[in-house]
Amino acid sequence: MKIVSFPPRTEWKQLLARPVQEMADIEQKVQPILAKVKAEGDNALKEFALKFDKVELDTIRVSQSEIDAAEHQLSDELKSAIQQAYHNIYTFHVAQKQEPQVIETMPGIKCWRKSVGIQKVGFYIPGGTAPLFSTVLMLGVPAQIAACQEVILCSPSNHPAIYYAAKLVGVTQVFRVGGAQAIAAMAYGTETIPQVYKIFGPGNQYVTAAKQLLSKEGVAIDMPAGPSEVAVFADDTAVPAFVASDLLSQAEHGADSQVLLVTTSKKLVSAVNLAVSGQLNRLPRKELAAQAIENSKIILLENEEDCVELLNDYAPEHLILSVANYASVAEKIVNAGSVFLGNYTPESCGDYASGTNHTLPTNGYARAYSGVSLDSFVKKITFQEISEEGIKNISKTVELMAEAESLEAHKRAVTLRVESLM
Amino acid sequence: MKIVSFPPRTEWKQLLARPVQEMADIEQKVQPILAKVKAEGDNALKEFALKFDKVELDTIRVSQSEIDAAEHQLSDELKSAIQQAYHNIYTFHVAQKQEPQVIETMPGIKCWRKSVGIQKVGFYIPGGTAPLFSTVLMLGVPAQIAACQEVILCSPSNHPAIYYAAKLVGVTQVFRVGGAQAIAAMAYGTETIPQVYKIFGPGNQYVTAAKQLLSKEGVAIDMPAGPSEVAVFADDTAVPAFVASDLLSQAEHGADSQVLLVTTSKKLVSAVNLAVSGQLNRLPRKELAAQAIENSKIILLENEEDCVELLNDYAPEHLILSVANYASVAEKIVNAGSVFLGNYTPESCGDYASGTNHTLPTNGYARAYSGVSLDSFVKKITFQEISEEGIKNISKTVELMAEAESLEAHKRAVTLRVESLM
Repeated sequence: MKIVSFPPRTEWKQLLARPVQEMADIEQKVQPILAKVKAEGDNALKEFALKFDKVELDTIRVSQSEIDAAEHQLSDELKSAIQQAYHNIYTFHVAQKQEPQVIETMPGIKCWRKSVGIQKVGFYIPGGTAPLFSTVLMLGVPAQIAACQEVILCSPSNHPAIYYAAKLVGVTQVFRVGGAQAIAAMAYGTETIPQVYKIFGPGNQYVTAAKQLLSKEGVAIDMPAGPSEVAVFADDTAVPAFVASDLLSQAEHGADSQVLLVTTSKKLVSAVNLAVSGQLNRLPRKELAAQAIENSKIILLENEEDCVELLNDYAPEHLILSVANYASVAEKIVNAGSVFLGNYTPESCGDYASGTNHTLPTNGYARAYSGVSLDSFVKKITFQEISEEGIKNISKTVELMAEAESLEAHKRAVTLRVESLM
Repeated sequence: MKIVSFPPRTEWKQLLARPVQEMADIEQKVQPILAKVKAEGDNALKEFALKFDKVELDTIRVSQSEIDAAEHQLSDELKSAIQQAYHNIYTFHVAQKQEPQVIETMPGIKCWRKSVGIQKVGFYIPGGTAPLFSTVLMLGVPAQIAACQEVILCSPSNHPAIYYAAKLVGVTQVFRVGGAQAIAAMAYGTETIPQVYKIFGPGNQYVTAAKQLLSKEGVAIDMPAGPSEVAVFADDTAVPAFVASDLLSQAEHGADSQVLLVTTSKKLVSAVNLAVSGQLNRLPRKELAAQAIENSKIILLENEEDCVELLNDYAPEHLILSVANYASVAEKIVNAGSVFLGNYTPESCGDYASGTNHTLPTNGYARAYSGVSLDSFVKKITFQEISEEGIKNISKTVELMAEAESLEAHKRAVTLRVESLM
């Protein structure tokens, strides 16, 4: 890890800069894929499967019996683990439900908001080395609580844990389609794959570019995506081995993972460095992790205040507070996706099973975006009901404002009603 | 208005299709404006003001004394109206506050969400014929409740009601800059205008394109925007003159306004048509409104069920239910921005003063997006704290899942901690 000691504030911005993702090239490659899926539907999906994945797609949809069979391919203990995670995620997200609360803003004027599940949503789960069935839970549980009617899943992976989790959360249909073409299929719909209103889930740069491009054409997406990140803020009370294990958890995601340690403790710097080297060698994904660690930074600062300020400037996706007074530090955090408090709260608990969502804003987006939650699966529709008394009470206000905005018809819609009551 | 009687379901999609907005040309014109503001800051803003608006911009920032003076240029009754609207909007939005609720998902595992105001937000208020000071309230009130620290406003209009509203909601700085260049200034920051994390507000196609383009570079935006829309669902109990006034309220926004009447009553069709013609002639903006009305549709359907289904397919920004059983119909609405119930609830009340927000999803986005609310001005950061007992309780679950996803370091971050407690 690169050690940066007491950088002056003027250098922070550069120090915390994330690698810029050049999307223009990728967008150019993705655009024709999207167009072909739009024009040719299922046939395009089959062509791309053959071309990119060397797979002959006989059936695009995964049959119910294939999904049902997944259960028998998993160990009982893994199934119990998935059920426990499901339980915790459900418990945390169901508490996010909001019942409509009728507010009488003036006598005779009642206003309320009602959360309504987005009717059709689609999930993308990438293939590759790590079958992200945990993401099926993280997206599927809030969709289930929101009572989304149609919940589809596209994945090039046929890992049984993905199918098992999909069944658990009530995914309605699963399709064996991957890449940018899967995103296009969900955005436009094909003969087999229904069109959805919102698309969720991780993916490589092609998937990300497809989501971004299609979001301009009307489909909503969960959030803009970048490489995963962790920042650890640690002091002398932190356990170097724990901190190292957290940094490596992030690093093993990929060579582009962003890993940051911020500390006021010189002693910790060398201890963590040592622990990282020791633990790294024992990891199966050590090549990937080593690359990420090489690009990662340890920033040594004067005091807690500076650390908090720097962390808020950085706005990390994950923030671990391995400091004695983590509760008071947590109060000062204004930009982060998810915060982990104390020595016994590793990020991996939140990644899988503590209950919080692991789909979080990366790349500094935590300054303005929240992670996925029940909110992501509902629209909050506002309603209002105005009585005869209410329209009389508010008429003057609306008439004056509409007139001042030169919107005469707006004014008359009120005036006509009030006059009819005279 | 075009009358369409009993269209077969197969024709609904085409019937409800909104005009496609061709953005590529506009993006090409906007792109160099953004680049120039990024590179040249204030100087670019001054050049564009001269070029596009024929305005010599001596000072970009509106002075506090100019803002303070606005109060004296408004009538007392307009100020009272603005204050009443402020009060109602505040009352409705403050009820959206959510206090953190700590959820113990398993013994020893505590998770919660905390809403934190987005630190820096920017509003854009267009110039043009209608000075939209009401939008200053609609954006400023929730920003104030969210306790956003820096709230800036860019507008080419110097209408005193805009400045008065800005002061009321605690806008921190106002800048006399308009168009795509104003959006760029807030996204990138200039010598005078601070960079913000999220940009809100309406605008023409250049402003919309600028928001969309800049959202790819990291700044968040309120939502994608299209022409404003209303759909009215009316039956025999509706008052034709009221319905006509609501349709015209929408129509006067501009020639591209989307206006739709859906009904089961033949009688109403002719009565509303007549009332529209009569009221139209008396409007100052009648040319604009007439164009929108010419493109608008009355759709006559067999029964309530069909009407509700068609309206949900259309997903209108504003939906007025002028039907006897509006309460039961409202229960069936799943896609709409804001819903207005009964004969005495015109859209214009929600546009100005009832309390609900008037920044709403257009163009069918109501299928997946909510209107602006307090949620739009906060991030909901998740926190978790796991005790020694908690990590023991959850360790097996996380270890098994991490292993199954081939993420060994994730597993070890838990194992190390549990082993240290043995």
